[in-house]
Amino acid sequence: MNNFNLHTPTRILFGKNAIAELRAQIPADARVLITYGGGSVKKTGVLDQVLSALHGLDVLEFGGIEPNPSYETLMKAVTLVREQNVTFLLAVGGGSVLDGTKFIAAAALYPQDIDPWHIVETRGSDITRAVPMGSVLTLPATGSESNSGAVISRRSTGDKQAFMNPHVQPLFAILDPVYTYTLPPRQVANGVVDAFVHTIEQYLTYPVDGRIQDRFAEGILLTLIEEGPRALAEPENYDVRANVMWAATMALNGLIGAGVPQDWATHMLGHELTAMHGLDHAQTLAIVLPSLMNEKRDTKREKLLQYGERVWNITEGNEQQRIDATIAATRDFFERMGVKTHLSDYGLDGSSIPALLAKLDEHGMTALGERGDITLDISRRIYEAAR
Amino acid sequence: MNNFNLHTPTRILFGKNAIAELRAQIPADARVLITYGGGSVKKTGVLDQVLSALHGLDVLEFGGIEPNPSYETLMKAVTLVREQNVTFLLAVGGGSVLDGTKFIAAAALYPQDIDPWHIVETRGSDITRAVPMGSVLTLPATGSESNSGAVISRRSTGDKQAFMNPHVQPLFAILDPVYTYTLPPRQVANGVVDAFVHTIEQYLTYPVDGRIQDRFAEGILLTLIEEGPRALAEPENYDVRANVMWAATMALNGLIGAGVPQDWATHMLGHELTAMHGLDHAQTLAIVLPSLMNEKRDTKREKLLQYGERVWNITEGNEQQRIDATIAATRDFFERMGVKTHLSDYGLDGSSIPALLAKLDEHGMTALGERGDITLDISRRIYEAAR
Repeated sequence: MNNFNLHTPTRILFGKNAIAELRAQIPADARVLITYGGGSVKKTGVLDQVLSALHGLDVLEFGGIEPNPSYETLMKAVTLVREQNVTFLLAVGGGSVLDGTKFIAAAALYPQDIDPWHIVETRGSDITRAVPMGSVLTLPATGSESNSGAVISRRSTGDKQAFMNPHVQPLFAILDPVYTYTLPPRQVANGVVDAFVHTIEQYLTYPVDGRIQDRFAEGILLTLIEEGPRALAEPENYDVRANVMWAATMALNGLIGAGVPQDWATHMLGHELTAMHGLDHAQTLAIVLPSLMNEKRDTKREKLLQYGERVWNITEGNEQQRIDATIAATRDFFERMGVKTHLSDYGLDGSSIPALLAKLDEHGMTALGERGDITLDISRRIYEAAR
Repeated sequence: MNNFNLHTPTRILFGKNAIAELRAQIPADARVLITYGGGSVKKTGVLDQVLSALHGLDVLEFGGIEPNPSYETLMKAVTLVREQNVTFLLAVGGGSVLDGTKFIAAAALYPQDIDPWHIVETRGSDITRAVPMGSVLTLPATGSESNSGAVISRRSTGDKQAFMNPHVQPLFAILDPVYTYTLPPRQVANGVVDAFVHTIEQYLTYPVDGRIQDRFAEGILLTLIEEGPRALAEPENYDVRANVMWAATMALNGLIGAGVPQDWATHMLGHELTAMHGLDHAQTLAIVLPSLMNEKRDTKREKLLQYGERVWNITEGNEQQRIDATIAATRDFFERMGVKTHLSDYGLDGSSIPALLAKLDEHGMTALGERGDITLDISRRIYEAAR
């Protein structure tokens, strides 16, 4: 097992009517900015519940944070926070709202003579303070509610990049599975695929005998495989929604990745697809992962076999056959969730692959994966095999 | 799944030479009291490493905290903390030192006109502040390094009772598996059994469809079963020690118990055995658990079958046979670890059972278990069947 430093300070308030715990989490004298997305939290009534829970506090609102939250939009909120002396940020929504609010939190207190895009360019390394934030989660997927990472896009330059810093980790997360009943099926499916791939990125590398980490990762994968299709079929089954929600949080709060190698190449290749073609984040993961698993079947051999056996119960055939079956099972799972796994399914013929590789190069993504051996040439093969 | 409020704020610094991270965790102007046990940390050199890491800080020492730490001993440290204006406590040792230090932390700042034993009597409910503390763990077992609970004994009255409060949760835990190489086999075995039973107490109840919790609990149990005997056979196998250490922490940091019913009757019945007869904590658990599983085989039926199948691969026979085999496998595991499972193995003939029941009664332990249906009469049957 590798050494690690693990800190998971976000308080999780989980369950039906967990909103009742919200008020106690925010200082009574706070000036609160509620951030949200395209307005679904208004339609579903979640925003009203939040406002009602915060009745009597000094509250402002900022809506309109889009999927793949953009620097351009977020900078408007940064101005608002600075002008209005906001002291607490409450993100109400899914991963995009969470990620965008993390950027707002850090950018608002960033030196005013530096363009806050610098936060993204430096991967968050020079953040020294941020406006404290909490969250009310409506879409289980990214795990952003209890980690210190965020992914931000800049439309003007076609960039999509991640930053991390402990100062932007939410203090608390309200997780009420009932809030997810009204999600469109596409978002439910995307969330399940996203959480699944987060887990794989921290599990499907090379073995370091981290048995707790492996068992926990396998437990998350099994839960998503069991409950993902049920979440689509039975949208108001509380326990199913609860299991998916808790799985997504546990998939990316640092726990299963502590002490083991991590990959993240699927995400990096996926980010470029979203930035260039506007595909949903989870769609890009479903396209890249099966292709990457096949391309890296030799260096990932031991974990592919373990994953196939423990998660998919694949024990028949020789090693290559079992690995083939394991990759096929993974692809089939994404397809059963309704998330297609080829570029052509999204009307892409692969002609943009050179441009995608140029963007990877520009972003320094030339030695990806747990061994740093996914060069631009390997990335090209992964994209090409995903056509 | 049940609602829950989960907070796991203890920073984990895990791995070889994690002691290098110690200094940065403690305020530079702190007046530190290092607490430890019977002196093994001197013999093994761990205390020297700690002192060396803290060189230049204002440091005091308090040794002699015994297994099942006593009120009588701890009150001497409370006096020291008060007289010397100690501002930070650093527990160096295992669960007893941790638990004892939690008591010291709360008692030192407790109203001076109230006997701090009141902290235990009120189960920690009225603690409003405590001296901040951290830990350097040398014995993986209790999970006390990253939770808010402690168990304290009072020799003068033969009491052993638990208290909990967030104010006594350690800020950090240094977990270096190498520190456990020199542990006596009996302590290694006790630690594995203790962690195993902690997991069972939060898992073997009735199903609430908490799939992540179940999978994680099963992952911890499987890891302890795989690695426990190897820890005895290969004391300097780093990965084995690392897996046992991480399993023990995860078994009782709140995670697997969040959102599911909990039992804890085995611990309550065990505490009375330790208080009256001085048995090791883990010995009492190994005595009580198989007997309790058998006594509660009907109300725990579904989880017993799931546990048998997923952890012990027991799938043959009818339900009663599978439950019998599951209980036998559990008992056999404890025996293989060298921890005996009958009262008679410790020279006890059961004649103290009425006195044990009187103590349970005195401590209000008359409706135990996840359903509150373990009455004194059921406890009597559990003790008697464990003879």
